[in-house]
Amino acid sequence: MPRKIVIIGANAAGVHAANAVRKTDSKAQITLIDKEPYPAYSRCGIPYVLAGEIPSLDDLTAFPPSHYRMMKFDLRLETEARSINPNDRIVLVENKEGNIEALKYDSLILATGAEPFIIPMQGHDLPGVFAMRTVDDGKAIQETMKTAERAIVIGAGFIGLETAHAFAANKIKTTIVEVVPYILPALFDEDMADYTQKKIEEHGVDVVVGRRVEAILGKDKVEGVSVAGEEIDADVVVMAAGIRPRTDLIRGLGVELGVTRAIRVNPRMETSVSGIFAAGDCVESQSDITGLPCLYQLGTNAVRQGTTAGVNAAGGYAANPRVICSAVSKIFDFELGAVGLSEFQAAKVGFKTLSATITGRTRAHYFPGGKEVKVKIVAEPILGRVMGAQIIGGEAVAQRINMLSVAIQKEMTALELSTADTSYAPPVAETVEPVATAAEIVAKKIRRR
Amino acid sequence: MPRKIVIIGANAAGVHAANAVRKTDSKAQITLIDKEPYPAYSRCGIPYVLAGEIPSLDDLTAFPPSHYRMMKFDLRLETEARSINPNDRIVLVENKEGNIEALKYDSLILATGAEPFIIPMQGHDLPGVFAMRTVDDGKAIQETMKTAERAIVIGAGFIGLETAHAFAANKIKTTIVEVVPYILPALFDEDMADYTQKKIEEHGVDVVVGRRVEAILGKDKVEGVSVAGEEIDADVVVMAAGIRPRTDLIRGLGVELGVTRAIRVNPRMETSVSGIFAAGDCVESQSDITGLPCLYQLGTNAVRQGTTAGVNAAGGYAANPRVICSAVSKIFDFELGAVGLSEFQAAKVGFKTLSATITGRTRAHYFPGGKEVKVKIVAEPILGRVMGAQIIGGEAVAQRINMLSVAIQKEMTALELSTADTSYAPPVAETVEPVATAAEIVAKKIRRR
Repeated sequence: MPRKIVIIGANAAGVHAANAVRKTDSKAQITLIDKEPYPAYSRCGIPYVLAGEIPSLDDLTAFPPSHYRMMKFDLRLETEARSINPNDRIVLVENKEGNIEALKYDSLILATGAEPFIIPMQGHDLPGVFAMRTVDDGKAIQETMKTAERAIVIGAGFIGLETAHAFAANKIKTTIVEVVPYILPALFDEDMADYTQKKIEEHGVDVVVGRRVEAILGKDKVEGVSVAGEEIDADVVVMAAGIRPRTDLIRGLGVELGVTRAIRVNPRMETSVSGIFAAGDCVESQSDITGLPCLYQLGTNAVRQGTTAGVNAAGGYAANPRVICSAVSKIFDFELGAVGLSEFQAAKVGFKTLSATITGRTRAHYFPGGKEVKVKIVAEPILGRVMGAQIIGGEAVAQRINMLSVAIQKEMTALELSTADTSYAPPVAETVEPVATAAEIVAKKIRRR
Repeated sequence: MPRKIVIIGANAAGVHAANAVRKTDSKAQITLIDKEPYPAYSRCGIPYVLAGEIPSLDDLTAFPPSHYRMMKFDLRLETEARSINPNDRIVLVENKEGNIEALKYDSLILATGAEPFIIPMQGHDLPGVFAMRTVDDGKAIQETMKTAERAIVIGAGFIGLETAHAFAANKIKTTIVEVVPYILPALFDEDMADYTQKKIEEHGVDVVVGRRVEAILGKDKVEGVSVAGEEIDADVVVMAAGIRPRTDLIRGLGVELGVTRAIRVNPRMETSVSGIFAAGDCVESQSDITGLPCLYQLGTNAVRQGTTAGVNAAGGYAANPRVICSAVSKIFDFELGAVGLSEFQAAKVGFKTLSATITGRTRAHYFPGGKEVKVKIVAEPILGRVMGAQIIGGEAVAQRINMLSVAIQKEMTALELSTADTSYAPPVAETVEPVATAAEIVAKKIRRR
């Protein structure tokens, strides 16, 4: 009897899980179900389509239809899982015609993802209020962009900033409202956030921090928002206030959630219920730096977790390391990235930190086209280990974040990083790499401590 | 009595040594001598000026004249050191008027650099034959570019390729001749070199490998070269056949040279003669990977060594780590870089290696403007440690080299690198970083071994 594998969710985690199952067990029966009408696509690309930088939402499709056929996946779109019976290993699924079917499984992989957190404020359900999560969200927002003159983005994480960038690219006057006193609170410390905010404002986007949107105003459709008692006009509002792991389906099954309210898994992506694996945005990760549970809901992590879940679900062996939480984005003419812990995050779990922030250039000072790059490095003051970094610059930020991710993975100290043998050529780097300079300053602070 | 410090050579190593002396001892008397008429400038920038990418050779000046005054350096240009008496700690120097002066020193720093190796073949001294080392070389080649129609570059290292790039940018038909059977023999293995060669040829530059230039032809000036019996016309020839440490001055003084014929120093940049330090292209480095002596004659290393020599010469304490030899360049529309050992280099010192080469993209496949990036990772097959990498791509190569440099510094295995928590966003990276994919393939080869 071929092994039966059911995967709920056919996006990054789900499809990579399916791919891994197929590579591990060429005979497995693989059923992929997803409630959306589209097979796996890049959510991360949606704001860039709306900004006009990628031609079409269709370009975001991850795999061509032939992939699903070639891999012999039974792909069922517009189909929702209704319930799971873990004792009999059965999932009940319902397609768009309302037909319900019982799918037997040997292994079940939950790749249910996350859903945008819609703050339940007055007016949250008015026409003109959107999330930025699905292709359908993207299509709806794209439609409003044809006529909208004023947009409000609630939340200043990466998604919020990318959405504001897309509105601005369409010449729509945009205001970002963030309740925390600085933007990117989950990634940046206040100093780097303030610098980033100024750069965003230079591109004509208003940023309001430390204020809460109390209500979305309008009668039949969005007309504005009320922010700390002040009204701001708007034709469209996007809620980018974070995402929540989608775990409704497993309520009452004994599948344990962690302190983050995401599904707890072991390194093989097994949940607490036999035969049920989980991967992607619905899952809790473990920080390699603190050892503590954390949420790391990005596409890269989904792909890694999905692959691991797929191998194990198919009877193979794979295990995921803990996470360092690298993240990067690009808006307007600059890239911004973070890895590891910010000073704020480190303090929250009881670590003291030392840090240094320096501004360098991405090319030799005399080489035309060089861009500014600002690097903050956070280190633990006893052993001197690098704990995190925040970078914003005109180019080559992602690979600097990766360098720091490797440094953190290998428990490098700031002093070691300051002696890194970095490369140099006038068109692509400064003689002394800004990351090394920032590390040197941190190392001196540690020595003087 | 203030400490007297004489520094021979006022380029990257020399001036950074002087800066470090000043920071360590605010009262030191610092004399910087250099035979060139220009204070420190970026040699690495010269080919890019000639290519028209940097407006002027003047832009390459490292520090403004005010820097030398502010730092109270006694800067003597067009002045040559004639001899050193290490017992009495005296250097005899001669200025352009022929005046000889004896300079007393407490510490002497040799930053004499290197000189281009001019292959002593027939015609090597004809007008129209140049090296690519100094501003004056640059000026002379720039002059020929106004009329030259055909150029020959002898040697396909970075300098050779950058020179060919400059000629091509001036619409001069160019041929690179490399005696080794593949280009970039000191940095790349043959597979990566062949790929790079094709890319260079696509830009209209001819590349001849495995053939020797036997003679430079011409009566009163260059008219061509003879390559393996075949004549190629040329109005200008640039010899880019490597550089040799400049050590004439210390002959007979007891300053030991290493097996590389460069000056042997300890980690504090002290030579074998008391009171004499050395830094930069005249110095031998130690490989962090093999522990063996090596040449690492690049600007970054010169700056690091100069700084260390300066601190120690001024009575402070600094020590340099061993080197990993990262190097990067950009020609035409691509960047190329290497770090650590190539397979060829590893084999030369007795290591077996395993490697993997993959081609990825620098952005999500659907994001316009993404470039190809080809990554080769070389690992040692017992412990699986990464020993080196070679990368060529349309963008973001330098920072990938830096990531790998950190990985090598921290003795990362290919398996560890394959699990690196790399960052992703459609405009700046692929979901799965090509470096991690290449590492994964190497790790699998190691496991199967």
